Amino acid sequence: MASEGARTVAQSRSTVVRLMVPSEANFMGNIFGGSILSEVDRVAYVTASRHAGGSTVTASFDRVDFIAPVHVGDVVEFVASLTYVGRSSMEVWVEVGAEDLTGGPRRPVVSAFVTMVAVDKDGRPRPVPPLELTNAAERRRFAEAEERMLARRKGRPRDSRAGAARKE
Amino acid sequence: MASEGARTVAQSRSTVVRLMVPSEANFMGNIFGGSILSEVDRVAYVTASRHAGGSTVTASFDRVDFIAPVHVGDVVEFVASLTYVGRSSMEVWVEVGAEDLTGGPRRPVVSAFVTMVAVDKDGRPRPVPPLELTNAAERRRFAEAEERMLARRKGRPRDSRAGAARKE
Amino acid sequence: MASEGARTVAQSRSTVVRLMVPSEANFMGNIFGGSILSEVDRVAYVTASRHAGGSTVTASFDRVDFIAPVHVGDVVEFVASLTYVGRSSMEVWVEVGAEDLTGGPRRPVVSAFVTMVAVDKDGRPRPVPPLELTNAAERRRFAEAEERMLARRKGRPRDSRAGAARKE
Amino acid sequence: MASEGARTVAQSRSTVVRLMVPSEANFMGNIFGGSILSEVDRVAYVTASRHAGGSTVTASFDRVDFIAPVHVGDVVEFVASLTYVGRSSMEVWVEVGAEDLTGGPRRPVVSAFVTMVAVDKDGRPRPVPPLELTNAAERRRFAEAEERMLARRKGRPRDSRAGAARKE
Amino acid sequence: MASEGARTVAQSRSTVVRLMVPSEANFMGNIFGGSILSEVDRVAYVTASRHAGGSTVTASFDRVDFIAPVHVGDVVEFVASLTYVGRSSMEVWVEVGAEDLTGGPRRPVVSAFVTMVAVDKDGRPRPVPPLELTNAAERRRFAEAEERMLARRKGRPRDSRAGAARKE
Amino acid sequence: MASEGARTVAQSRSTVVRLMVPSEANFMGNIFGGSILSEVDRVAYVTASRHAGGSTVTASFDRVDFIAPVHVGDVVEFVASLTYVGRSSMEVWVEVGAEDLTGGPRRPVVSAFVTMVAVDKDGRPRPVPPLELTNAAERRRFAEAEERMLARRKGRPRDSRAGAARKE
Repeated sequence: MASEGARTVAQSRSTVVRLMVPSEANFMGNIFGGSILSEVDRVAYVTASRHAGGSTVTASFDRVDFIAPVHVGDVVEFVASLTYVGRSSMEVWVEVGAEDLTGGPRRPVVSAFVTMVAVDKDGRPRPVPPLELTNAAERRRFAEAEERMLARRKGRPRDSRAGAARKE
Repeated sequence: MASEGARTVAQSRSTVVRLMVPSEANFMGNIFGGSILSEVDRVAYVTASRHAGGSTVTASFDRVDFIAPVHVGDVVEFVASLTYVGRSSMEVWVEVGAEDLTGGPRRPVVSAFVTMVAVDKDGRPRPVPPLELTNAAERRRFAEAEERMLARRKGRPRDSRAGAARKE
Repeated sequence: MASEGARTVAQSRSTVVRLMVPSEANFMGNIFGGSILSEVDRVAYVTASRHAGGSTVTASFDRVDFIAPVHVGDVVEFVASLTYVGRSSMEVWVEVGAEDLTGGPRRPVVSAFVTMVAVDKDGRPRPVPPLELTNAAERRRFAEAEERMLARRKGRPRDSRAGAARKE
Repeated sequence: MASEGARTVAQSRSTVVRLMVPSEANFMGNIFGGSILSEVDRVAYVTASRHAGGSTVTASFDRVDFIAPVHVGDVVEFVASLTYVGRSSMEVWVEVGAEDLTGGPRRPVVSAFVTMVAVDKDGRPRPVPPLELTNAAERRRFAEAEERMLARRKGRPRDSRAGAARKE
Repeated sequence: MASEGARTVAQSRSTVVRLMVPSEANFMGNIFGGSILSEVDRVAYVTASRHAGGSTVTASFDRVDFIAPVHVGDVVEFVASLTYVGRSSMEVWVEVGAEDLTGGPRRPVVSAFVTMVAVDKDGRPRPVPPLELTNAAERRRFAEAEERMLARRKGRPRDSRAGAARKE
Repeated sequence: MASEGARTVAQSRSTVVRLMVPSEANFMGNIFGGSILSEVDRVAYVTASRHAGGSTVTASFDRVDFIAPVHVGDVVEFVASLTYVGRSSMEVWVEVGAEDLTGGPRRPVVSAFVTMVAVDKDGRPRPVPPLELTNAAERRRFAEAEERMLARRKGRPRDSRAGAARKE
């Protein structure tokens, strides 16, 4: 049974298709990985902000692997779904696939987990509605996301060391 | 003693300062995390391509934490340096800091490790010159980067599972 | 029964959500109608090119009414579906709606009919697969679209007169 | 004799020449129709806002036919003139032509009629100065525009049906 | 009497009006001088390339003074005319003025002299048609431009010293 | 000995590397001179605003010569340093060089002197800290910049005449 005010995964799922243009490619026609990540962040923002009913900020990106290159002229599809919702933070899973319009198969490009936090006017975290899980796959992904959340907290020290390296 | 054709860390280090404008912000004036990552990728591309003497592609981004928000009007500085060079892959360390022009302290924003691969005209990996290390800090970072490289290879299975999750 | 090689409406349907940013607004925060039409054209291009299995060009936009204003910070959704397919031309129906993230209702913004033509490398029209209709609504829309196609051909003379007005 | 405060067609006529760049083209080098319409809307905004002495919004675009393709490297000229002015709405006629710089003839590309409405700070319609007509051609175009205005009002029902189609 | 193939000043004159948007402004709403110069260069390119019947490159900008600030929401007009044509180089005079739509006077913003050179496919200078002067003002401007051309050639040494300063 | 609150040249020096993309090039692959000047202005803004501890506006660009063409795929580096500081105006020297990534030599592209003025919230000039000169080269450049400042004031009349030419 869902909590008061809970929203489902489907209610905030967001999709973007984009035709890749030359201004986002290097001179060999390869789309920059950073252009893909920029769009991943925008669609994650929409999904998290729809669930939260207000503005959100990006807290972190988990490691992302670019599995296949993307070229000028490809159509790239981004699908963003919530996997986990805490008090004010949310994990958004964004899958990215590319097609080349001539009928070849859709190639997976990137699969990213983005952590977003709902914020008020002053930029402070604010509570969000709970996530209503409606099937076994959503429940399994929620459990996996909780593990990643825990791993992220333990991972902090490494990032601090990286920041410290600068001072030499 | 340096190998034949080796290049130093300093020779490919690259810096970008950018004034943040409203087109990259949400309506509360916060710059999108994805706009920051897009610029991180561009400066990593320049550093890796300078070392390689030719075009490169982004293979992966390690996990990134956004430590502090960036606002419209901030000046943001990106410094990219090589930490590790393999046969055709390179790790680029990009540090991002923000200032608000009124003289406040520089705030660290993100510290990212990006793996880039040198490619030939057909997109196949091609060898790059070795990295000449010139001091203790560079040598320590090279050793730390080798550990991350190893961890990335062990990390692959998790990413495959993420990709598989789609099929349900 | 579907023709050889026919494709369904669902196979080429395309969706885009976009957060509206200040660079596409006038100084009162209203998004330009032309920015909306530009995105309508891009998503119509993707839908028509997916069906055609190759590049297409825009032949015409039917009259569009902007029913409601769009503001900076709104999330706007574009859904493009084929309604009609001829030998080399296709009609794409693009519906545009806006939400303001604070949970208000979705407002319809524009409903547009765009005619796209499949072209070969030299820009000449080339044949496309037939459209497989799978339910009564798709069949009714196909019939309505055929009427519009006829009306467009009869409408040509008016456009010629407009062109002629210049010469005075 | 002109009304008090009336302005002529020439006083608000606006012209834009633009060199077409690759970021607005598909991978065959054809400029997107939507990029053309976006510029049509911007120059119509300037013409209507100059006449109104303040901000305006786009109410509708009449049907547009793309008569000729536009390519990367072409110079495209947009000329916007008022044809009709009501209480708070205005019809802007935008003619678009392309040249290829090597001295070939100027090709007509699109001829569009855009309806703009003057608005106050709260987005409500506000009155605009009358249009002073100075020759027979302007008077004939004003009469033709009045007919289109009438046809637009009668055309509404069709648009409503299009909106209704969604609900199935 | 005009030379064979000569073209008039009016034949290549080019005009651009643009509404200034927030993505080209600093956080106080002032449009960047560099955004103005970028548009000056584009319209000078169009004028020179129309006269030359092919591609041109920018050789130099004379000193420019920004006489008045430009704000978000202003309409800015750029008018480019040829003043002088040599064998393969041309001087383009670009005048820039701003209006604020509420009916205030047009403010002059910048007056720039840009030298453009016609080039062939390999980037080498190529001859251009002579300029046909049709009135006293055009002839006086041509004479003034010739003096500037001479002054530019004498000015070169200073630029070389500036370049040399780096080597210390 | 430095004045109270003085800042050094090194404290505000700013560097940008940028990979040139097709959206800033004409159809022969040459980057527009105006795109280079736009970036020159942005980095000059950062340097002057860092020294001033607040916002600045561009007052003038000295004459600039484009010594070498820049192509799509080149990496271009912009280095901005203060040469002179008055009461509220500053001269910024921006050097621009290009590399083509395949290891060829760095080519000087442009050397520009930009005058920036510190302004308060209402756009009025406000005082800035003095410049602390730390070596002979900085002192020589300061002296040269003072001469240019004087020459600029004497040069004003010519600009006024240019503005007057319009009225004919």
